[in-house]
Amino acid sequence: MSHDATADTAASPAQLNLPPDSVGLVTPQTFVFDEPLELSCGRTLDHYQLMVETYGTLNADASNAILICHALSGHHHVAGYHSLEDRKPGWWDSAVGPGKPIDTNKFFVVGLNNLGGCHGSSGPTSINPATGQPFGPDFPIVTVKDWVTAQARLADRLGIQRWAVVIGGSLGGMQALQWSIDYPERLANAMVIASAPKLSAQNIAFNEVARQAISKDPEFHQGRYADHHSYPKVGLMLARMVGHITYLSDEAMREKFGRELKRGKLSFEFDVDFQVESYLHYQGEQFSTAFDANAYLLMTKALDYFDPASEYDDDLAAALSRAQCRFMLMSFTTDWRFSPERSREIVNALVVAGKDVSYAEIDAPQGHDAFLLPIPRYMELMQTYLNRVASDLNIIPAVQGGQP
Amino acid sequence: MSHDATADTAASPAQLNLPPDSVGLVTPQTFVFDEPLELSCGRTLDHYQLMVETYGTLNADASNAILICHALSGHHHVAGYHSLEDRKPGWWDSAVGPGKPIDTNKFFVVGLNNLGGCHGSSGPTSINPATGQPFGPDFPIVTVKDWVTAQARLADRLGIQRWAVVIGGSLGGMQALQWSIDYPERLANAMVIASAPKLSAQNIAFNEVARQAISKDPEFHQGRYADHHSYPKVGLMLARMVGHITYLSDEAMREKFGRELKRGKLSFEFDVDFQVESYLHYQGEQFSTAFDANAYLLMTKALDYFDPASEYDDDLAAALSRAQCRFMLMSFTTDWRFSPERSREIVNALVVAGKDVSYAEIDAPQGHDAFLLPIPRYMELMQTYLNRVASDLNIIPAVQGGQP
Repeated sequence: MSHDATADTAASPAQLNLPPDSVGLVTPQTFVFDEPLELSCGRTLDHYQLMVETYGTLNADASNAILICHALSGHHHVAGYHSLEDRKPGWWDSAVGPGKPIDTNKFFVVGLNNLGGCHGSSGPTSINPATGQPFGPDFPIVTVKDWVTAQARLADRLGIQRWAVVIGGSLGGMQALQWSIDYPERLANAMVIASAPKLSAQNIAFNEVARQAISKDPEFHQGRYADHHSYPKVGLMLARMVGHITYLSDEAMREKFGRELKRGKLSFEFDVDFQVESYLHYQGEQFSTAFDANAYLLMTKALDYFDPASEYDDDLAAALSRAQCRFMLMSFTTDWRFSPERSREIVNALVVAGKDVSYAEIDAPQGHDAFLLPIPRYMELMQTYLNRVASDLNIIPAVQGGQP
Repeated sequence: MSHDATADTAASPAQLNLPPDSVGLVTPQTFVFDEPLELSCGRTLDHYQLMVETYGTLNADASNAILICHALSGHHHVAGYHSLEDRKPGWWDSAVGPGKPIDTNKFFVVGLNNLGGCHGSSGPTSINPATGQPFGPDFPIVTVKDWVTAQARLADRLGIQRWAVVIGGSLGGMQALQWSIDYPERLANAMVIASAPKLSAQNIAFNEVARQAISKDPEFHQGRYADHHSYPKVGLMLARMVGHITYLSDEAMREKFGRELKRGKLSFEFDVDFQVESYLHYQGEQFSTAFDANAYLLMTKALDYFDPASEYDDDLAAALSRAQCRFMLMSFTTDWRFSPERSREIVNALVVAGKDVSYAEIDAPQGHDAFLLPIPRYMELMQTYLNRVASDLNIIPAVQGGQP
């Protein structure tokens, strides 16, 4: 199953008629691990694989590597295109590329699909060696801590002793935070965006609605839908609809849809009346065919379980006391899923712990989704921070190209 | 089907071992209407009935009547007990009774179940005279305006030409507002609590998730579950879970549950881990056996459709220009379903329209649910306002009793 770890960089983006600041055509790589991985739940994965993409070039002393950790429904395909027929690039293409804030002329950028995912890394859709059938609901519950351990082994394999930066938004930011605690010597910077030190009761409640929608769908069959040649499409659709509402701000929805009617007038039937309803249906529908239901359950549990302070008498500053990296935190004014207040909890704990921390609260109407969008102020701050990282680490641009 | 419109007041609450400030044992009354009711949707209800409860005594000039309009899942049983075995009183018992803010020693208080409901008024569970079967999904979509028309006919029947006050919270507040526009001469005061002039896109989005959860439940059978001897219990449970999250503030959930674990430790299974999950299950479960699914769909559409300014070029002040009553608006600081900002939109429009309006934003951690709770400051404000109403209208306490 292992591919060679080479990016397809034979032709330049411009030659391929792709945007000049794109990383161009990229090929995912599979890394197979045979060393058993003990998980937080007590179970062990004897073998597993991670699906990975890299962009840019690792420099001679391997000091220019950036790890990008994905959020709930993300994956390894962060930037660029898989084929010339691809209509959409990777999920964070706006931030990653030559001359972009996460500049592939300077940095070697690594994206991966986390364990338990459904985009090529070992997860519920993988074959369970014990049975020869897909794991389905038998795939163990994995945690942010487990992901970080697996990511550290990936770093070993890539020859990266210390990341220049570990970056993530939302659930990805939790991984960056966990890195700073579990492998303090192995990262120089943690960039934690639109994240939280742990979920609130309200966050957990929304996740539980999503889980109930999936698991109570008659097509779920206790997670063994594959055996029944069925799929809990409706449950996953509902889960995504609820999730999606929490990703957008009230303000963003008002600006985007207001009370605009789909057919110009009220139906007076139990039908779609408002544009916002159509939009949610579309989002739910798209997602329900693209994501594995068991993997979705796993991801929500990883979110719920994240709470690094819990092992330190709920003292977040104590949990972070081992960290040695610099921290950059960012939040967005209208994000109500992980509000600025949640980021400030982390900032305050880091200040108490005497750590080097920068924090920016970015004025943005888009809600939680803002962390995925190329908001000018946000991109400028990221670029400025990463330029300083490159300068501090004496990283010299390996390749010239892209936007100035 | 019609009962006599007499309240059971033979024995005092104290004699029955009920709280002394309770309205005591009460008996719902059915009012049958044979005059056709033209609805906003264009359809007509030839006959319909309303389930009603009244407390206190209507005075000689019928000047002391208060109408209480219910919210999404409310009904006619506002206060008191239906039997000595009743473990819970009516839904607003904390506010209605002798000596309470809505003082039944002074006022004649009327509660009803709205059309389309499932607590005794004509609705989807009623028999459709055209078929001899329950209406089910064929019951027409009713609007806030339709409810107010039906309530005006009830007022006629009760001999009430002009309400001293029309009061409602949430969807109930929308009815009070509609009263002031449609029957300006028929109310002296409108008390609009934790309400909004129309739903936001986010509000509609949450309602649509609830509707999808119900209508995509395989037991729904396009609303004809009764014919199939089935019931969309899971859909209704999910709908209520989502709704319930929006009724509570993040703060209230944190205070009530935090991250408290159900069994003292994480399960590392796809099971309930946190107390907040159990609580939501319980709420959803309880509701799913107590409410009709078609009625729930109707109520959410009534919410979505409410928008009195829409007939006035979206000018709320113009819509309210016909009003002649005094207004009292109240909102709660942590309510994010209908935030204080939404109440201020109404207040501002009333100020522009030159109306007599008072407004109080009450500091309360409970979120939207606060409007149902006996929060001291809230109860005091209501009592003060209603005392002045009684005084202005020269209402003399009809009965002595209850708390001083």
